[in-house]
Amino acid sequence: MLFSFNVMAQYKFDNVLYGAAYYHEYMPYERLDKDIQMMKDCGLSVVRVGESAWGIFEPQEGVFEFEWMDRIINKMHEAGIKVILGTPTYSIPIWLAERHPEVLAEYTRGNKAYYGIRQNMDFTNPTFRYYSERIIRKMMERYAQHPAVIGYQVDNETEARGVNNKDYFIGFKNYIKNKFNNNLDLLTKEWGMNYWGMNINTWEEFYTRDGVTNPSYKNEWERYNRKSVADFLNWQCDIVNEYKRKDQFVTHCFMPDFHNIDQVESFRQMQYPAINVYHDVQDKQDGQRIAYAGDFVRTVAKGNYIVMETNAQGIGWDARNQRPPYYNQLRQNVYAHYASGANMVEYWHWATLHYGQETYWRGILGHDLEPNRIYNEFKTTADELKKIGNKLINLKKKNKVAILYSHDSYHALNFMPYTYKENYPIDRVYKALYMQNIETDIVPCDKWIDFSQYTMLVIPPLYVATDELLSGIDKFVKEGGHVVMLHKSGYCNEHSAVRATLAPGLLRKACGFYYQEYSTIDAMPLRDNPYNIEDSNQISDWYEFLQLETAKPLAYANHPFFGKWPVITENSYGKGKLTYIGTYPSQELLNKVICQVAINATIIPSDYMQFPFIIRSGINQQEKKLHYIFNYSADTQEIQYPYSFGKNILSGKDVDAKSLIKLEPWGVAIIEER
Amino acid sequence: MLFSFNVMAQYKFDNVLYGAAYYHEYMPYERLDKDIQMMKDCGLSVVRVGESAWGIFEPQEGVFEFEWMDRIINKMHEAGIKVILGTPTYSIPIWLAERHPEVLAEYTRGNKAYYGIRQNMDFTNPTFRYYSERIIRKMMERYAQHPAVIGYQVDNETEARGVNNKDYFIGFKNYIKNKFNNNLDLLTKEWGMNYWGMNINTWEEFYTRDGVTNPSYKNEWERYNRKSVADFLNWQCDIVNEYKRKDQFVTHCFMPDFHNIDQVESFRQMQYPAINVYHDVQDKQDGQRIAYAGDFVRTVAKGNYIVMETNAQGIGWDARNQRPPYYNQLRQNVYAHYASGANMVEYWHWATLHYGQETYWRGILGHDLEPNRIYNEFKTTADELKKIGNKLINLKKKNKVAILYSHDSYHALNFMPYTYKENYPIDRVYKALYMQNIETDIVPCDKWIDFSQYTMLVIPPLYVATDELLSGIDKFVKEGGHVVMLHKSGYCNEHSAVRATLAPGLLRKACGFYYQEYSTIDAMPLRDNPYNIEDSNQISDWYEFLQLETAKPLAYANHPFFGKWPVITENSYGKGKLTYIGTYPSQELLNKVICQVAINATIIPSDYMQFPFIIRSGINQQEKKLHYIFNYSADTQEIQYPYSFGKNILSGKDVDAKSLIKLEPWGVAIIEER
Amino acid sequence: MLFSFNVMAQYKFDNVLYGAAYYHEYMPYERLDKDIQMMKDCGLSVVRVGESAWGIFEPQEGVFEFEWMDRIINKMHEAGIKVILGTPTYSIPIWLAERHPEVLAEYTRGNKAYYGIRQNMDFTNPTFRYYSERIIRKMMERYAQHPAVIGYQVDNETEARGVNNKDYFIGFKNYIKNKFNNNLDLLTKEWGMNYWGMNINTWEEFYTRDGVTNPSYKNEWERYNRKSVADFLNWQCDIVNEYKRKDQFVTHCFMPDFHNIDQVESFRQMQYPAINVYHDVQDKQDGQRIAYAGDFVRTVAKGNYIVMETNAQGIGWDARNQRPPYYNQLRQNVYAHYASGANMVEYWHWATLHYGQETYWRGILGHDLEPNRIYNEFKTTADELKKIGNKLINLKKKNKVAILYSHDSYHALNFMPYTYKENYPIDRVYKALYMQNIETDIVPCDKWIDFSQYTMLVIPPLYVATDELLSGIDKFVKEGGHVVMLHKSGYCNEHSAVRATLAPGLLRKACGFYYQEYSTIDAMPLRDNPYNIEDSNQISDWYEFLQLETAKPLAYANHPFFGKWPVITENSYGKGKLTYIGTYPSQELLNKVICQVAINATIIPSDYMQFPFIIRSGINQQEKKLHYIFNYSADTQEIQYPYSFGKNILSGKDVDAKSLIKLEPWGVAIIEER
Repeated sequence: MLFSFNVMAQYKFDNVLYGAAYYHEYMPYERLDKDIQMMKDCGLSVVRVGESAWGIFEPQEGVFEFEWMDRIINKMHEAGIKVILGTPTYSIPIWLAERHPEVLAEYTRGNKAYYGIRQNMDFTNPTFRYYSERIIRKMMERYAQHPAVIGYQVDNETEARGVNNKDYFIGFKNYIKNKFNNNLDLLTKEWGMNYWGMNINTWEEFYTRDGVTNPSYKNEWERYNRKSVADFLNWQCDIVNEYKRKDQFVTHCFMPDFHNIDQVESFRQMQYPAINVYHDVQDKQDGQRIAYAGDFVRTVAKGNYIVMETNAQGIGWDARNQRPPYYNQLRQNVYAHYASGANMVEYWHWATLHYGQETYWRGILGHDLEPNRIYNEFKTTADELKKIGNKLINLKKKNKVAILYSHDSYHALNFMPYTYKENYPIDRVYKALYMQNIETDIVPCDKWIDFSQYTMLVIPPLYVATDELLSGIDKFVKEGGHVVMLHKSGYCNEHSAVRATLAPGLLRKACGFYYQEYSTIDAMPLRDNPYNIEDSNQISDWYEFLQLETAKPLAYANHPFFGKWPVITENSYGKGKLTYIGTYPSQELLNKVICQVAINATIIPSDYMQFPFIIRSGINQQEKKLHYIFNYSADTQEIQYPYSFGKNILSGKDVDAKSLIKLEPWGVAIIEER
Repeated sequence: MLFSFNVMAQYKFDNVLYGAAYYHEYMPYERLDKDIQMMKDCGLSVVRVGESAWGIFEPQEGVFEFEWMDRIINKMHEAGIKVILGTPTYSIPIWLAERHPEVLAEYTRGNKAYYGIRQNMDFTNPTFRYYSERIIRKMMERYAQHPAVIGYQVDNETEARGVNNKDYFIGFKNYIKNKFNNNLDLLTKEWGMNYWGMNINTWEEFYTRDGVTNPSYKNEWERYNRKSVADFLNWQCDIVNEYKRKDQFVTHCFMPDFHNIDQVESFRQMQYPAINVYHDVQDKQDGQRIAYAGDFVRTVAKGNYIVMETNAQGIGWDARNQRPPYYNQLRQNVYAHYASGANMVEYWHWATLHYGQETYWRGILGHDLEPNRIYNEFKTTADELKKIGNKLINLKKKNKVAILYSHDSYHALNFMPYTYKENYPIDRVYKALYMQNIETDIVPCDKWIDFSQYTMLVIPPLYVATDELLSGIDKFVKEGGHVVMLHKSGYCNEHSAVRATLAPGLLRKACGFYYQEYSTIDAMPLRDNPYNIEDSNQISDWYEFLQLETAKPLAYANHPFFGKWPVITENSYGKGKLTYIGTYPSQELLNKVICQVAINATIIPSDYMQFPFIIRSGINQQEKKLHYIFNYSADTQEIQYPYSFGKNILSGKDVDAKSLIKLEPWGVAIIEER
Repeated sequence: MLFSFNVMAQYKFDNVLYGAAYYHEYMPYERLDKDIQMMKDCGLSVVRVGESAWGIFEPQEGVFEFEWMDRIINKMHEAGIKVILGTPTYSIPIWLAERHPEVLAEYTRGNKAYYGIRQNMDFTNPTFRYYSERIIRKMMERYAQHPAVIGYQVDNETEARGVNNKDYFIGFKNYIKNKFNNNLDLLTKEWGMNYWGMNINTWEEFYTRDGVTNPSYKNEWERYNRKSVADFLNWQCDIVNEYKRKDQFVTHCFMPDFHNIDQVESFRQMQYPAINVYHDVQDKQDGQRIAYAGDFVRTVAKGNYIVMETNAQGIGWDARNQRPPYYNQLRQNVYAHYASGANMVEYWHWATLHYGQETYWRGILGHDLEPNRIYNEFKTTADELKKIGNKLINLKKKNKVAILYSHDSYHALNFMPYTYKENYPIDRVYKALYMQNIETDIVPCDKWIDFSQYTMLVIPPLYVATDELLSGIDKFVKEGGHVVMLHKSGYCNEHSAVRATLAPGLLRKACGFYYQEYSTIDAMPLRDNPYNIEDSNQISDWYEFLQLETAKPLAYANHPFFGKWPVITENSYGKGKLTYIGTYPSQELLNKVICQVAINATIIPSDYMQFPFIIRSGINQQEKKLHYIFNYSADTQEIQYPYSFGKNILSGKDVDAKSLIKLEPWGVAIIEER
């Protein structure tokens, strides 16, 4: 194995944690005791504090005030509530911006950041780093030994966010120098800088990001962004690690848009990476975003993770998307998190704010700060968790299927888009698996190329890939793997330069075809509806003119010109099979293609269950198989239980194989096999 | 009474005035005598001049040229045409911008104004004030004693227009210092500046508007904008007042978008505030915008007002909205103005320009400068006015209904929008009243809280309100008033911070319910169509979960979840009643709710007349009841006259109660009761 | 005649040329010999090289490297392939931008250009000119005598592109000074600068373009842009002419959006102006854009022209418009070019790039650099051309119809738009002629006012026109011409100021009406469907209230108000007739109006052929009539040959008058009359 857990990591969950971010410093009046009493009453077990409070910890440069936080943490400890402490570096105090305006972010084309919002700094600026390090050390000195503190969150939802300050650009130039061993000729050649005569002769001439059109430059800039974020987080981890106890963890709350962070490198020193998952509710509640975020972070973490923020009531930076959950939905979402491998669920946040940009990003309590419908459902859920949490904790999964996710391809396709729809349709691919109950890992294939643990790979347009990665896929098929691959895969090398060979380059043998041409297409059907789809036998946007060698055709466009070339093909190669989709399929068509492969690979039965019933399974720490069965609908439903005899640990009732299970509206059953 | 007329005001209207803005300085050739002859021929009685001519009055710094204007005013006087003179400060000469570029406006985020357009300056800049004062004094010295001049317009359509210059910001900071008595802790607390750790420790740290997200800051910035505009206008009034004769008035032409000016303070020294009303014509002519603007300015002026600009032919800064009136429409609009309490109607402008941004903002004359269809209709109308004007002049109204208009709520809701429709649906509320012939005042309730003269209040979302205002509404109901109140009212305090109590805060008793939750909703019907609406039994966007205490439910959503809570309620409280709409109603639904209350309050009869027939009434200076009855349609129509015996002063015919009146297409009848 | 060919022009075409732009310097590996072998194999006869390679020719300031290009040109020569050499000034090397950032373009309102893209410089900057001149001279010294080189392209697709640098503005000010003979009063009067008091008193006060709203200023700024581009191109021509042999030509590749270049002045020293034509293909292939560009450039050139760039496969700066041609379409487009008077067709480009912004602007070869479907169709076409090219070369046309194109009107209408559709509907007008096989010239009427060679003029909205031009049109009608004129013609003078007379000013007699009013209108039909149009008897956007004097009405709106005035009229005037369209007609209506006039003028027969059959005719150098007949459809079609006995030079078969000709899908017949 290439990656392993940090040897310092020793925090142990003995039950799932269930809590919220807490900001007494934002309250309109003193109510710490009242809040803590209400927390105890509803069974809340953990809070996150401190990550937004630099200006309060250090109201003047070098003047530190921690007493107010001492009081909060002490009282939490007295109440038996665990505390996660955030380093407060994502929102800088005004004194820092005022005396060092150079820490504020500068963007491309002369645009710049102003004070009045968070995440407005050049996070690589040494002055910012100097003051950040000091406040982190002060906090760690004060709180590392506090028995309430179980872990630390470094920074918050970090991304590069368009930083283009001079020092950041110099950092990028040095990174490029280093990457190309100072060889300008090589850079010129790989990036094709002769184009428009924009070749450079000295490093002084290396030009800034502002006016750049070169896709290779842009793609490397995005890599540098991802790396810089990871470096920053590891820099914070290094500082925290000097102080933290062995039974404390360090984490960071990632956003589930994977695209702008190097997760593999960022998770390096984190026992339990965290995610912030905000998702649809009410009629659109389907658990998909929870599962998607969980599947990715669990795969990269190679183990369990925690949910640092998720929605309690309505959310938004305005009031246009206020969608509090229906009855039962809050509880259902909690189990959806645990079903993906989470060990903790925290809401953002305990109490809704009365001021500021997030006035309508509502917490468990509303603006009235009184118990309410959500608070009551929290309490019910917490009661259940107390009883069954030790069956849920530390859930392990060993999925047969993986989606290959490529940061590089995401960005490169967006620099050179081929559709007005999603140019990197990872969501569409994930949905096809999720809605049909094919559990999956999500593998960051720009970094990991050993797929031997999987039976089937699903590959969204792998537009940018190294030779090694393409060879890894070739090997996977040859050795018996099943692959569903989408269009444009293998088209560019790692410099985002198109390969000067017949497409799809090194994938040609595994695919069993080559192609020289492609066309934008309007929406059109497949000829003879080969997948028997009622409404959406439809392709659009892109059509590759596949010239079959060993592959067999599965589908053609119903079109006098394009229909000359097949567009979905299957190729037996070595012991495995590769199914290729040379077009943009409708969701339904993609579902069918993927299902057929999964059935053939005996990953799902031919009578597999579908949305609105979602099943998520794993092995719990008692080494028992655990099945979560969700009803994502407003109706009471009955389904046939498809596994071996077990017990519904929520109801306490035994469940025979093939017996009927009744699921409430927005309900869930959790069956532990015997 | 808190407010009263300026004691200096002594201008007396002896007939309605009817005229146009006039710019001989823009004419392509000398034609002053010809224009004046044409004016006399068509019965024009007043012109406004001079407000755009600073560069011509003072072509070089300190070099003044007034002879050209002397000639115009003298000839107008000879022709018996009255003159309103504008101070020319809204469009600065190039020499000012060139030698003092610091007077040009700077906007947020480094954007700035350039020369080549009007209203591009920082109107608080001392250099701008210095030169403005000089040109005003020069003009006043020259013209104050001229017998033709009946009044002065100070500046033109003034708003703050995004000014963010350094001196403007310092002015704002000082205003805040003063407002909070220099107490930074209080500021921090009231604005919730601890949020994201953006608290400040010294006034030097008070940050500029550029990057601000804090809604309390934004709301106060808007207040400062409104105040600065009022201060600027009063500063000009003070100068003008030093010179003007007692029989002259001073005014300013306000835009009928009320939102960006403190009208109460701005009108302080103005006997006859003016409005510029540009409205739909042709098939969309309905008189609504004329009435809306009139009702507001008349309410705030506590008396009559004048119309400084309104459309003659097509208007626009391009040629895409050229909509000259149909036959009779020009005349109909004139009476619509007088029916709302205007004493003067002036078109913008006499003659269409051959150059410049407003080439297609057409006047009475077109580009050919010859008599035309519009000129002819002007003449017909002027002839009528000569005969009946003394019956129309100085119309008084004593409306039983008032809309409470809140500048603060308008801005605060737009900072934190809850719908993609109008976030402060004042137009929708006004339309409900106007179209059903419920005459109304429009009260600026951020400033005025005594509603005792009214029987019924209609309250658009009163999102931001002081305790005093909420208590005033409570008192109004308790003492027998009828209220229709929309959602979100009472939610925030005067700092635009949400009240930390059960909503709707201090309105809870008067409303008879509280609520803790709300939701964004898609469009849906009310259950069982309680208002019997054929097509539009519909609510959308917002739904409050009302928990009734003393209120009774009037309507519920037809929805399995939201329908658990009523959303329109009625509460008897003290001697009065409050009807509440906790959702975004369709126009038709809002009409019905308001009508039902108005009928119950005996404000309108149950067989009230509706659009396209619009009735506007008042008491004329002969102390007779005057009724304008408009036919806003292209068809000849007959309606039953609903008032006591009177005389149609246009036709000279007697009109019996309940007799039929025939109205021409786009026609009007004016009945004076005996 | 005002204009004539440059006496130096002596290049002679002995056959059509057929080739591509070629960039060996962009290739991912050495393949010059292979490329040239493939070129020879497919019959390619010409390449353009060098226009983008400044940075490679001069990688450091003053260090020149031409060996790489020597090798290319030498090998081309050996292979018998002709070479057109481009001056490489449209894309500057980084060393120039780095040491002289002042050459980078500055745009209005503080925006500026950055390095990383082409055409980002102030092309009037002396430093740019200094280095440009040096590289041009170096190239000319090296290659002028090379036997392979047949001509030179100066710069590439030049436009002013928003340049607003200080020196550019000073240039504009001087141009205005000169134009108005230093007379500020005249400027003030003609531009109406008194408006908003924006008159200037000294030239120092003449303000920059940034904030300007004055349409006269804007229009003159556009003229200056067009002039500056022409001056720049002529400056380059002057340098090239010092070196070039008499048997070489100099050219520039113009974009077929005519609007931003003074073509008449730019073509002054060019024997064969070039155009770059990128057009629709696949189901939208119709030849229209090819014909449109050709008709304009041929008219202004008063002779033949060349096509420097056109699409081979899919094009675009992203991958969203990849539309390779169907079978036969590539070939069909080649003949469409020759049918309009082209002597050369070159693709952009030989081989698709693997890097850079134009990765998906695909050439003859795809990314694999192997022979493909397009390459094969190129070869087939080249083979044909070898046989019949001498029949096609130097085609002459003498069209009876001309469209009057006005640069000034295009810009002025866009400064003061009257529709959300095209404000200068030249495309709609051209389509009406093209689709109905009325061949036309396109005359730049801001410069040329003698129309005596034509029988019929079609005049898109001639919003800006000198008295001379209007008189020229009057004369044309009076002397027997047929005119179809659109709305808004004659409205403004040459300063883009509206004429202070009854519209349409000097055209009143020829039109036979005047008007004072107009209105924006929604879509509505003509009354009684006078043109018998099934689906689209429709007008919209604009309606002039025409008061007939001598004209007779042809059509009225079907509307109670607008229908009082006719909106299409016909006026017999002198020996000719003027048909006027005072509204925005549907395409079908415009087609009908134009056709009816063309039939009456005996320009087309009443049974004229229509799209998808397009006929383009001329006289070849054998002085024979040559007819191209295109089938723009995917179906095999038969049509009756409408001309005298001839021979299809493609098939070699004789064709009798009125005999049936069979046309393949996307096919063409070329008939030479005997």
